[in-house]
Amino acid sequence: MFFASDNWAGSHPKITESLARHAVGFVPAYGAGDLDRRVEERFCEIFEREVAVFFVSTGTAANSLALTAVNRPGGVAFCHREAHVVSDECGAPEYLSGGARLFPVDGPLGRIDPARLEAAISRFPREFVHHGQPIAVSITQSTEIGTLYRLADIDAVAAICRSHGLPLHMDGARFANALASLGVTPAEMTWRRGIDILSFGGTKNGCWCAEAVVFMNPEQAHEFPFLRKRAAQLFSKSRFVAAQFEAYFETGLWLKTAAHANAMAARLAGQIEASEVARLAWTPEANEVFMLMEREVARRLAEAGAIFGEWSPPASEAGLMNPGEGLYRLVTSFATTADEVDRFGGLLR
Amino acid sequence: MFFASDNWAGSHPKITESLARHAVGFVPAYGAGDLDRRVEERFCEIFEREVAVFFVSTGTAANSLALTAVNRPGGVAFCHREAHVVSDECGAPEYLSGGARLFPVDGPLGRIDPARLEAAISRFPREFVHHGQPIAVSITQSTEIGTLYRLADIDAVAAICRSHGLPLHMDGARFANALASLGVTPAEMTWRRGIDILSFGGTKNGCWCAEAVVFMNPEQAHEFPFLRKRAAQLFSKSRFVAAQFEAYFETGLWLKTAAHANAMAARLAGQIEASEVARLAWTPEANEVFMLMEREVARRLAEAGAIFGEWSPPASEAGLMNPGEGLYRLVTSFATTADEVDRFGGLLR
Amino acid sequence: MFFASDNWAGSHPKITESLARHAVGFVPAYGAGDLDRRVEERFCEIFEREVAVFFVSTGTAANSLALTAVNRPGGVAFCHREAHVVSDECGAPEYLSGGARLFPVDGPLGRIDPARLEAAISRFPREFVHHGQPIAVSITQSTEIGTLYRLADIDAVAAICRSHGLPLHMDGARFANALASLGVTPAEMTWRRGIDILSFGGTKNGCWCAEAVVFMNPEQAHEFPFLRKRAAQLFSKSRFVAAQFEAYFETGLWLKTAAHANAMAARLAGQIEASEVARLAWTPEANEVFMLMEREVARRLAEAGAIFGEWSPPASEAGLMNPGEGLYRLVTSFATTADEVDRFGGLLR
Amino acid sequence: MFFASDNWAGSHPKITESLARHAVGFVPAYGAGDLDRRVEERFCEIFEREVAVFFVSTGTAANSLALTAVNRPGGVAFCHREAHVVSDECGAPEYLSGGARLFPVDGPLGRIDPARLEAAISRFPREFVHHGQPIAVSITQSTEIGTLYRLADIDAVAAICRSHGLPLHMDGARFANALASLGVTPAEMTWRRGIDILSFGGTKNGCWCAEAVVFMNPEQAHEFPFLRKRAAQLFSKSRFVAAQFEAYFETGLWLKTAAHANAMAARLAGQIEASEVARLAWTPEANEVFMLMEREVARRLAEAGAIFGEWSPPASEAGLMNPGEGLYRLVTSFATTADEVDRFGGLLR
Repeated sequence: MFFASDNWAGSHPKITESLARHAVGFVPAYGAGDLDRRVEERFCEIFEREVAVFFVSTGTAANSLALTAVNRPGGVAFCHREAHVVSDECGAPEYLSGGARLFPVDGPLGRIDPARLEAAISRFPREFVHHGQPIAVSITQSTEIGTLYRLADIDAVAAICRSHGLPLHMDGARFANALASLGVTPAEMTWRRGIDILSFGGTKNGCWCAEAVVFMNPEQAHEFPFLRKRAAQLFSKSRFVAAQFEAYFETGLWLKTAAHANAMAARLAGQIEASEVARLAWTPEANEVFMLMEREVARRLAEAGAIFGEWSPPASEAGLMNPGEGLYRLVTSFATTADEVDRFGGLLR
Repeated sequence: MFFASDNWAGSHPKITESLARHAVGFVPAYGAGDLDRRVEERFCEIFEREVAVFFVSTGTAANSLALTAVNRPGGVAFCHREAHVVSDECGAPEYLSGGARLFPVDGPLGRIDPARLEAAISRFPREFVHHGQPIAVSITQSTEIGTLYRLADIDAVAAICRSHGLPLHMDGARFANALASLGVTPAEMTWRRGIDILSFGGTKNGCWCAEAVVFMNPEQAHEFPFLRKRAAQLFSKSRFVAAQFEAYFETGLWLKTAAHANAMAARLAGQIEASEVARLAWTPEANEVFMLMEREVARRLAEAGAIFGEWSPPASEAGLMNPGEGLYRLVTSFATTADEVDRFGGLLR
Repeated sequence: MFFASDNWAGSHPKITESLARHAVGFVPAYGAGDLDRRVEERFCEIFEREVAVFFVSTGTAANSLALTAVNRPGGVAFCHREAHVVSDECGAPEYLSGGARLFPVDGPLGRIDPARLEAAISRFPREFVHHGQPIAVSITQSTEIGTLYRLADIDAVAAICRSHGLPLHMDGARFANALASLGVTPAEMTWRRGIDILSFGGTKNGCWCAEAVVFMNPEQAHEFPFLRKRAAQLFSKSRFVAAQFEAYFETGLWLKTAAHANAMAARLAGQIEASEVARLAWTPEANEVFMLMEREVARRLAEAGAIFGEWSPPASEAGLMNPGEGLYRLVTSFATTADEVDRFGGLLR
Repeated sequence: MFFASDNWAGSHPKITESLARHAVGFVPAYGAGDLDRRVEERFCEIFEREVAVFFVSTGTAANSLALTAVNRPGGVAFCHREAHVVSDECGAPEYLSGGARLFPVDGPLGRIDPARLEAAISRFPREFVHHGQPIAVSITQSTEIGTLYRLADIDAVAAICRSHGLPLHMDGARFANALASLGVTPAEMTWRRGIDILSFGGTKNGCWCAEAVVFMNPEQAHEFPFLRKRAAQLFSKSRFVAAQFEAYFETGLWLKTAAHANAMAARLAGQIEASEVARLAWTPEANEVFMLMEREVARRLAEAGAIFGEWSPPASEAGLMNPGEGLYRLVTSFATTADEVDRFGGLLR
């Protein structure tokens, strides 16, 4: 019963098969091969517009370089207090951007509260050098705590960005899970809402290592080839990422694996709701389930072979916990089986 | 006839097979799995000592973070004028280290000349803040131009490092080719000579993406986990690198593929020596062959399907070229066949 | 009636006179002159121990380089939410340190709350690379809002630093004001309490431009000469800073100017307390007075020639404000006169 | 007999007097005062166009921030091999720019050779990420070795910049000396030639600390206020720099002090030419004189009280030295007297 992380799953058989198929033969390095081109075109089709796509090695790289691309002196980027970019990347965005600051904004259920965002941005008057200057807003979709921004939620954030002339970045480490859950298209969830740059993650959803920075407006990406190489993020045998993405997009694999993971999360949530020793912290909307239970119970589940981790309660949700309780995260993936979920459910009873 | 780069080859069937085998099942992420541990132990066996091993995504990352690990304010690292680190990494070492400078040192045949190294270092008097301070020496083995440092050559550089208290880094993008050619052990070519940090490259020699920073003295690596994560170089599904290295080291695969590539380079050299339209620029010692020929001849070879690139003549070897001639690089790999080499030889006649 | 900032005052006549006296003759540049040495020794006397002193150009430089000196990969420094270092330096600490993060800690009246500090540090478990690692704690004395850490308050913070092995930095932009107010010695307020590095500010207290980084343990400063030069902070005609400090310390000038500024602040507080249109936000303890009044009243004071600025209420003190009220800061300096204060008091009546 | 450096001189009496005069009274901080404005306008008059002026603390800061302002990912700036920016700033330009590289270009007598510059730039093909990308050219006027670029020499460099779309920076640490020597106007020597950004130095020519970055096109400076503050280079009591510049420009003081220093250098050169124990390395054109003499003679001069330093021979001029000889630099300033020069001449006989 592995619910520790979607990073614990390996690679989907079709991804593996694609890697094997493309392992043979000589092709140009550093992203100049036909397969690389083909995959870039595939991204354009998927996003229904000309986009610029850059493979990088990790989601942290994608996020950090996206922010680096828009940084300016004294730059301040706004993100949710729980965002990966501010809490789990060891300062990579600050380091790689040359010192940009991440300004945490609160909001319930993992989503930036628009009013708080507006208030945060307004703390940086134009031309006032002492405070620094806003450079971007970053949202995470699906969020760190398994919830989603509805399209209208993204609109609300995007409107604030537009009014301040700020680019809007989306950390899409679990982009497919959000798409599958909302039942919308990539275009609808990104540039049609005002997203300018997307960290497109494939790794958690069945790839080995397939992350990309996607610029919705390719003109804004003209420095990015140098920026990526300078950050040591240009793969020589780039086709190994392209091969993963080719299979990922083939006949909608990516949305199927995401839908499966989401379904497993929903099933897990059902088991938890049915239990008397655990309860949902909030309703899961993608592939992450957060539950509250007494620590002693959690300890016994672990002994019984269930693998999952304790989580620091978000400030906005801290009030949900009773004394003695812990908050626990369970993550599902393409590789999670209904049987595994049900066995866990069995333990909960 | 693909001689453009060893980066144009895909992955060796055994590497591919290992990836497929390890794709199944759940294992801890971020390098905490059993396979990761096992591969780290394998590195220790190979180097005949306790070493600290860190996977990264590219050779540029390995080199840059190695230098970052030893940087100090106003730091200056010394390398050969043709070194990848100074000429082909888009400033990644300077950027990632926070501004270290690379000081190019000349020397014939791609090797740092010890006397010139000593002279270069002596331009930085201790405590003289205006010039900055030496932080490291970096050598490339095999070199950028397909030659080798003999053990005594490394000794000579290491002695200078020791006398100045400087760590010695080896860029081993083609480490296996050097080992196979010299017929020495990894220990003999590294820490027994005075190498402190090694960029260990597997990608060019049959892996998809398998690079590592190896600290010969693990105590010097205690900050490196943070340093790597901060640089966005910590893979989540780290086992995909470990799986490559496992197969790479299995029954000496890595030395076999390297020896094969070297043999193909020697065979290519033989064809060139036998030709009347081309000549060797210098004797190849690993898997890169540099030849001189008239540009018109090169053009016709390209039309006939031979893929290889023109190369800027190193300053120390510029005198070898006759007017009208170009310098060309041909690289062999695990995937190069004798037949391919011989067809090229046929064209040369 | 100039209460906008102690930075609006010029230089004290004795500072001016010292500059004029030292303007003549040739002396070694870059801090190597006799006067530089003499001033460094003076610092040692004042701090009653061997200290290492480095002049820099601004308080921002002093703070930023102090944190840079102790930074490590993924580094996180803790400071009060209102600290200058996090709110008023345009990201200089992050930029100059190569990406260190500043983690704001709350606490009433401008002082870090020890329990919150402990909680904040505990969010960074040792060896957990994703969050980064603590590198330092920084306190401001006197604080941004004109209050003071008592010696016991510093002890409480220092005890936490010690237990986590963290260096403790003091931003002493108004160091002399704190000393004069507490009536303690520099040693008592710094290293005897556990301060490791001090930003020693003279500019606000009557100098033109006299800031220094002071290492209480000179051994920790051995890289700092390179670090300062690399940051473009090594003055060529360094004696012009030394000349200021010489006069500053002569016959206790610095403590007299600070005591005067403090006394003027206390007098101003008295006028405010006596007024019916204004009230003290909190009791001033150094040379900054914060008052609450209706915005309309403030506007009329400004029209009458009183110069002072509105201030964003600290999160911990936001509850003090009534609707319609603004928070205003008034700063006194060596150049503030009792007459000026009393004229302002007159306006308040 | 002080010829060690123009940094060894103190401040000119008129500078000192101006500082004293402006020490009194309250004025807005951070460059917002009337005096600051007035001095900025004075710069515009002097340069005969609208320019943007930013005071910074050191020449190293001016140079480094000028290059930072134009840096791009993988950026490479070209300068003379002897340029201060590459040899004497402890890596500040690389550090502050976030990793820009300085590419040294040779050329006789301290001047970049245009053909070599063209060749150097051409090593960076557009779009080729591995090498990085050119960002700027920097020339030093007067040069590090006391020579000058004639207007036509600047034209030649500027034409290359223009053809490659590169901004041209001038390090004017000794700007006034060059102006006075060439007898041209600031406009003629800068923007009319194609200079885009100027490091304007006043310190070596009689100020205490008066350096500025001057943008010939203010539109290119719109990010610079943040960039300067982020680099900890925004003075609070900014008027102390403005006060220096006000006196500096008053009735042409700056050109008089420069002309005096130049004349003293010429007089010194005459003494050397007349001597049998010393000879000029090359003809001095500003306020630095380089002489060759046997080391033993230099030692005896030092014993007799002449203070000057040995200099590493520039690569292009290394052939001038005979065995046993050293190269020595003598610098004159506003404070050098004819008597001092003649006493030194006496020693030479």
